[in-house]
Amino acid sequence: MARRKLEDEEIQEALAELTGWEVKDGKLHREFKFRSFGSAIGWMVSVAVYADKRDHHPEWCNVYNRVRVDLVTHDLDNAISNLDVEMARKMNELFEKG
Amino acid sequence: MARRKLEDEEIQEALAELTGWEVKDGKLHREFKFRSFGSAIGWMVSVAVYADKRDHHPEWCNVYNRVRVDLVTHDLDNAISNLDVEMARKMNELFEKG
Amino acid sequence: MARRKLEDEEIQEALAELTGWEVKDGKLHREFKFRSFGSAIGWMVSVAVYADKRDHHPEWCNVYNRVRVDLVTHDLDNAISNLDVEMARKMNELFEKG
Amino acid sequence: MARRKLEDEEIQEALAELTGWEVKDGKLHREFKFRSFGSAIGWMVSVAVYADKRDHHPEWCNVYNRVRVDLVTHDLDNAISNLDVEMARKMNELFEKG
Repeated sequence: MARRKLEDEEIQEALAELTGWEVKDGKLHREFKFRSFGSAIGWMVSVAVYADKRDHHPEWCNVYNRVRVDLVTHDLDNAISNLDVEMARKMNELFEKG
Repeated sequence: MARRKLEDEEIQEALAELTGWEVKDGKLHREFKFRSFGSAIGWMVSVAVYADKRDHHPEWCNVYNRVRVDLVTHDLDNAISNLDVEMARKMNELFEKG
Repeated sequence: MARRKLEDEEIQEALAELTGWEVKDGKLHREFKFRSFGSAIGWMVSVAVYADKRDHHPEWCNVYNRVRVDLVTHDLDNAISNLDVEMARKMNELFEKG
Repeated sequence: MARRKLEDEEIQEALAELTGWEVKDGKLHREFKFRSFGSAIGWMVSVAVYADKRDHHPEWCNVYNRVRVDLVTHDLDNAISNLDVEMARKMNELFEKG
């Protein structure tokens, strides 16, 4: 799918439907909290399988049952793109429904 | 935790609360179906973290979005033990709630 | 990449370069043994990321530090295809080099 | 195993045998680079299985094929302990040998 930088307005629209996400330091940002360390790592793996297929990889940090995510598109001068919004949506879906 | 072979009656009691599980070929058995391959693998990882901590490891087979599990306790002459019931319960919990 | 059923001769040629693999019950088959359960699961995850990207998924069973793999192409009447040979090669590479 | 704050001298001795590690901002620190995103995630999973068993969890960040790790013991006022050195050693072992 084509990568396209989103306008501020488009980002705001997307955020309206993305539970837990915000723009922080120019990146799509969310902190996830899990029931256990194992659940956090399992979720990261399910996201990773998706991410590599889309060839779009998150910046994420884990400590115990928390994962902090920052999304931005490196190929587009680190702008927030449609791929970042899709990734955020997928992360929420895998977080909520498995 | 102590490993203890369960009597048939105890196994039947346990099964009554374990959605989807049955005894098959002398093992606790369930087949899980996931929304995607990534979800299946992510779940396996969350279970694996738990399993190694308990030092109790499943026999499991994956094809695409399905995982077939057989639980039995090797140290107890391949009987079904309290550890198998616990593992089945944990697998269900991680399947349902993440 | 196109999926193509391999002739017996092609399979034999491929096997000559695939350490540990054989044809068993009409499938490419290998049993991997790891240093630990954690290493086995970690390897499965690295393979899974690759597999989903190629949209070609293994049949595999794990018990403790062992993983038994069977490869066949469902879309080609369960014949062994070029995709199975590639997958076997990738599994060996991830097993040997990480 | 008992958790014990290490003296500076002990940390220096440990670092002498820990390829790639240094003390940075009061934490044991290393950056790992992998052959692929899948390999990075697979390694994280193998480490995670070990970490939860030891009940000692890393702070780690991943972007594509890189993982940045910081180790410190939260229960010991964020000092570097024997558990951090063990974790660093295990991470190197799983990185080098799988």
